[in-house]
Amino acid sequence: MNKAADNIRVLAASMVEKAKSGHPGGAMGGADFVNVLFSEFLIYDPENPRWEGRDRFFLDPGHMSPMLYAVLALSGKFTMEELQAFRQWGSPTPGHPEVNVERGIENTSGPLGQGHTYAVGAAIAAKFLQARLGEEVMGQTIYAYISDGGIQEEISQGAGRVAGTLGLDNLVMFYDANNVQLSTTVEEVDDEDIAMKYIAWGWKVIEIDGNDVEEIRDALREAKAETRRPTLIIGHTLMGKGARGADGSSYENKVSTHGQPLSNAGASIAETIKNLGGDPEHPFTIFPEVAELYARRRKELSIIMAGRYAAKEAWAKAYPEKAEKLERWFSGQLPDIDWAGIEQKANQATRGASATVLGVLATRVENMIVASADLSNSDKTDGFLKKTHAFTRGDFSGAFFQAGVAELTMACVCIGMSLHGGVIAACGTFFVFSDYMKPALRMAALMRQPVKFIWTHDAFRVGEDGPTHEPVEQEAQVRLLEKMKNHQGRASMLVLRPADSAETTVSWKLAMENNDTPTALILSRQNITELPARENRYQEALPTEKGAYIVNEDADADVILLASGSEVSTLVDGAALLRADGIKVRIVSVPSEGLFRSQSKEYQESVLPAGTKKFGLTAGLPVNLEGLVGPDGKVWGLESFGFSAPYKVLDEKLGFTAQNVYNQVKELLA
Amino acid sequence: MNKAADNIRVLAASMVEKAKSGHPGGAMGGADFVNVLFSEFLIYDPENPRWEGRDRFFLDPGHMSPMLYAVLALSGKFTMEELQAFRQWGSPTPGHPEVNVERGIENTSGPLGQGHTYAVGAAIAAKFLQARLGEEVMGQTIYAYISDGGIQEEISQGAGRVAGTLGLDNLVMFYDANNVQLSTTVEEVDDEDIAMKYIAWGWKVIEIDGNDVEEIRDALREAKAETRRPTLIIGHTLMGKGARGADGSSYENKVSTHGQPLSNAGASIAETIKNLGGDPEHPFTIFPEVAELYARRRKELSIIMAGRYAAKEAWAKAYPEKAEKLERWFSGQLPDIDWAGIEQKANQATRGASATVLGVLATRVENMIVASADLSNSDKTDGFLKKTHAFTRGDFSGAFFQAGVAELTMACVCIGMSLHGGVIAACGTFFVFSDYMKPALRMAALMRQPVKFIWTHDAFRVGEDGPTHEPVEQEAQVRLLEKMKNHQGRASMLVLRPADSAETTVSWKLAMENNDTPTALILSRQNITELPARENRYQEALPTEKGAYIVNEDADADVILLASGSEVSTLVDGAALLRADGIKVRIVSVPSEGLFRSQSKEYQESVLPAGTKKFGLTAGLPVNLEGLVGPDGKVWGLESFGFSAPYKVLDEKLGFTAQNVYNQVKELLA
Repeated sequence: MNKAADNIRVLAASMVEKAKSGHPGGAMGGADFVNVLFSEFLIYDPENPRWEGRDRFFLDPGHMSPMLYAVLALSGKFTMEELQAFRQWGSPTPGHPEVNVERGIENTSGPLGQGHTYAVGAAIAAKFLQARLGEEVMGQTIYAYISDGGIQEEISQGAGRVAGTLGLDNLVMFYDANNVQLSTTVEEVDDEDIAMKYIAWGWKVIEIDGNDVEEIRDALREAKAETRRPTLIIGHTLMGKGARGADGSSYENKVSTHGQPLSNAGASIAETIKNLGGDPEHPFTIFPEVAELYARRRKELSIIMAGRYAAKEAWAKAYPEKAEKLERWFSGQLPDIDWAGIEQKANQATRGASATVLGVLATRVENMIVASADLSNSDKTDGFLKKTHAFTRGDFSGAFFQAGVAELTMACVCIGMSLHGGVIAACGTFFVFSDYMKPALRMAALMRQPVKFIWTHDAFRVGEDGPTHEPVEQEAQVRLLEKMKNHQGRASMLVLRPADSAETTVSWKLAMENNDTPTALILSRQNITELPARENRYQEALPTEKGAYIVNEDADADVILLASGSEVSTLVDGAALLRADGIKVRIVSVPSEGLFRSQSKEYQESVLPAGTKKFGLTAGLPVNLEGLVGPDGKVWGLESFGFSAPYKVLDEKLGFTAQNVYNQVKELLA
Repeated sequence: MNKAADNIRVLAASMVEKAKSGHPGGAMGGADFVNVLFSEFLIYDPENPRWEGRDRFFLDPGHMSPMLYAVLALSGKFTMEELQAFRQWGSPTPGHPEVNVERGIENTSGPLGQGHTYAVGAAIAAKFLQARLGEEVMGQTIYAYISDGGIQEEISQGAGRVAGTLGLDNLVMFYDANNVQLSTTVEEVDDEDIAMKYIAWGWKVIEIDGNDVEEIRDALREAKAETRRPTLIIGHTLMGKGARGADGSSYENKVSTHGQPLSNAGASIAETIKNLGGDPEHPFTIFPEVAELYARRRKELSIIMAGRYAAKEAWAKAYPEKAEKLERWFSGQLPDIDWAGIEQKANQATRGASATVLGVLATRVENMIVASADLSNSDKTDGFLKKTHAFTRGDFSGAFFQAGVAELTMACVCIGMSLHGGVIAACGTFFVFSDYMKPALRMAALMRQPVKFIWTHDAFRVGEDGPTHEPVEQEAQVRLLEKMKNHQGRASMLVLRPADSAETTVSWKLAMENNDTPTALILSRQNITELPARENRYQEALPTEKGAYIVNEDADADVILLASGSEVSTLVDGAALLRADGIKVRIVSVPSEGLFRSQSKEYQESVLPAGTKKFGLTAGLPVNLEGLVGPDGKVWGLESFGFSAPYKVLDEKLGFTAQNVYNQVKELLA
């Protein structure tokens, strides 16, 4: 066992050395834990990496990637050549791990703190699925690995509280306490009592020597036996374990080995490898006895898996309906939903229209989980909550997650649920608080997790609550993720701001059908006059799917008026004044510029032809529409923070009225 | 005393009722504490609200503004008419409090968790100043008020850890534990042991009945006597204390009274006012005995202040140099700095150039505090650290704040230092982690706090660390705050991305001289070839102050090449190829579009004349430059997440080379 951990240390140090960049020290200290975990505890199917019942391992400190790649190499998931290509263009071993279930990587990591919060989400998803499908097929344990930095990140407060409050006994977290961080020792910035803190959050805490195989084993056994609480194993480890200088002196427990090759820190890579039983000439080697150890584990796993599959088969025979659900849920297949049949009250706020849809989804989509950061009655996720109930300790029969006031935690928990698989996660809060979620949005976009973000109170019409609660720059901000492509070349996020109830239904349809990227729905607090229907407003709102479409128009329009969200109805009112004046108008609703930009040039040109003057209205920054309006047009937006006053007063003060639309367009055409 | 608290309750409930919106319940529960604090403990000068030695009160839950406005009205800071204008256009009583020291409001609040973290920052600033000026003039106590939501917010982890680790015994926080939050009771989402958690963070914890005057008094006395730790007073309070239904039944302890007028919650405002000893016909009244109580306090304060001013005078005589410093520091005056004389190594990374400047500032600007989120050796704030040392418990003689891995906390602590006054705060981390700080950036911008944000590793040239560490959309994101104006009509933030060492020096000059908004410096990880100098590069870089300027040009240029940051030097190399081909070129550096847009139209036109073709190069999203390049131009940017590989490989793969500049411009001109 010690030999295997040393093998991981040799590989990790050598990868960083060869790449001339990376973090060797932590990887060398944590090797013992991951070795025990992967060679004795983690249950997965080497033949079927996507097996839904697998234990999952979430790494929080992504900079410890060499440790993960090394232990996965011992497990047969990476070749020595791939380890040698660490941090190089196109290699499967990038500087920070990128989610790759086939390779045993459950999450992308790097920004500290998020990784262990995904694990909390995965543990909730496992509980939710277990409540519906049974322990026979959903008995997995979720392991997380956290470092000093992750413990310090603010989000550990949310993750710790949520896991403790919900009593997630299927969650086991190893805290690699090596007392060394990137720029200082830990004690210089943090003298908290971490064990006491986690006990306060309701966790079981075990403190061990994190480099001692026996203690690691015992702790993992004890953690697996716990039936009421999540477990934190505080493992005291030695940063840079085994590192040696040219003269054989120790380079352990040094800040300098945290974030650079050992040789840059003054240590000798050759002496280190020798000290760890390796051959400096051939460092990228699996020791024979280690190969044997992992081959033995592979054999054990094949026996374990035979048992699991047999049990699953028996279960499927006993519960064919559940078996069918399991397959469907993990395949990402949606049940049929009669979107056109969803009845919406006229002239309501789009958050209200969203609540209507959520009420339908609550009964139709059995594997959907909705969350709110203490705003369910405002963000109207209560449309879902009213048809179910919230998770509580020991009871995951409901489908609602009361996240408390912790927006970033909520987002990461939902991402973790999605990474687990088998569930569809959505979460709501005020749009202005999307700011808190940005770090997680970026990760959801990068990992292509189809979480649905429901953001209400979308503009200054929040009114009396004033500037701290009134989004202005947020729409432009989140649409930057529409502009940015993921590694598959698609817009990394779908962002929809529907103009009325019908567009809200269609937007939810798009959100549910989007299985490939996160989706955002930006919804109004205030009531909105329904856009004029020719026959059937829902049918006419279907081109929401193209990102922008013509709501109505006069032949040979003099001007195109465009907007998203509630501003479209203001344009409709303004258009009435213009038309009374003999001006011919086309009104375009643009729920998603990103989606519109992905349409054919012909379609784009048919909706917003070059050469026709355009007027854009946005309650956010003018930049929201400037790209679409172009050089001959004009955008009326909000260029400052908002103000505290009733929203109808703000409409007047800030120029979001039919009359101002009329005035501005007349000026533009003059 | 009870009468005074009831008076606050009547006023708070009536304000919400009249405004038809707001949060009465919490304000009614917390009234007893603020009454005791303001009428017996808080030391300030009613005649001189800006007195630097005042105790400061930071409210975290901004939705409890009615409580704050009411107690400040009793203290003579607001009139009854102003309370009646609660949440109305142009009133000094907006929905959430907006910083207004004259009126006794130390911070804008609303997004939960930030307010109490500002208090931590203010307490650090007080310690820093006390170490330099003495306890005679800097003995103030910092009070914070937090609610259940703030306790749940992730940032409480950072604030709790920092305050405990640094032993901030000048910080007293009241936790209004009423067990009711907006959508549920607290126990449904949070069963942590909060007292134990704060003890784990190193706080003293006192638990009391938060509606009991005597217990509040005793707790505040005990907290003030504590000399080693910050104190948390957990006050169990009754949400909606005194609220009654039409039949006289209690409406206390209900979720429904949290976020709407009492009458909307089914209670009777008239019965409630009567129950609290008020007159429903004239609710906006200060009871005579309460007026007397607060008049008495005013008298006490004038006696206290006479003593304080006398002590200050004696101190100023004994320490004239210190007295001069105190005046200078609190007036925001900078010492003379020989910016032109700062010597920079050629061809270094702009983070390195920043370190040089920081080294100068460390010796010249005695009241400057620099922080880093565990990256001082990477973000090069160690340029400052090397000339000083970090804060530790009981020793604030240094000027560096090791924030640990907690970016949002660091930002809020710096804002809090700035709100305290007397110090200049700056903080550094990787640019990609500016995402974590966004909620605080917005508040700094709204409150016009001149914190300096140092963000290094500014683009994909982070290289091997890969997409999680490579900013792409962040520049566009933070520049949205340049586009958004504050309530004074200025760009709410100054954002500078210098192109070389000389521009970095000038950017720091602008940052230090900007006393009115936050400033961001976006700096490179990798070395940058110095821009070509005609005579003196520093002098030639001075027009950085205009946001954009001509670096060099051929007469009658065929094309204008523009960029910010390290891309400018790539343009210079590309221009050499173009010039060799007979193409005449102008090169423009644009460190700040926002600043450029604030110049005269003539200047803007002289640098970027309409009608000349333009080519923009940005390592961020193309939208960074699209507005400047215009319809006839072309932007080469990065439209996807980054990749893990050495940065010179990425330069080639992603087209950030002289050759690609040449190719693209040739195509544009063709």
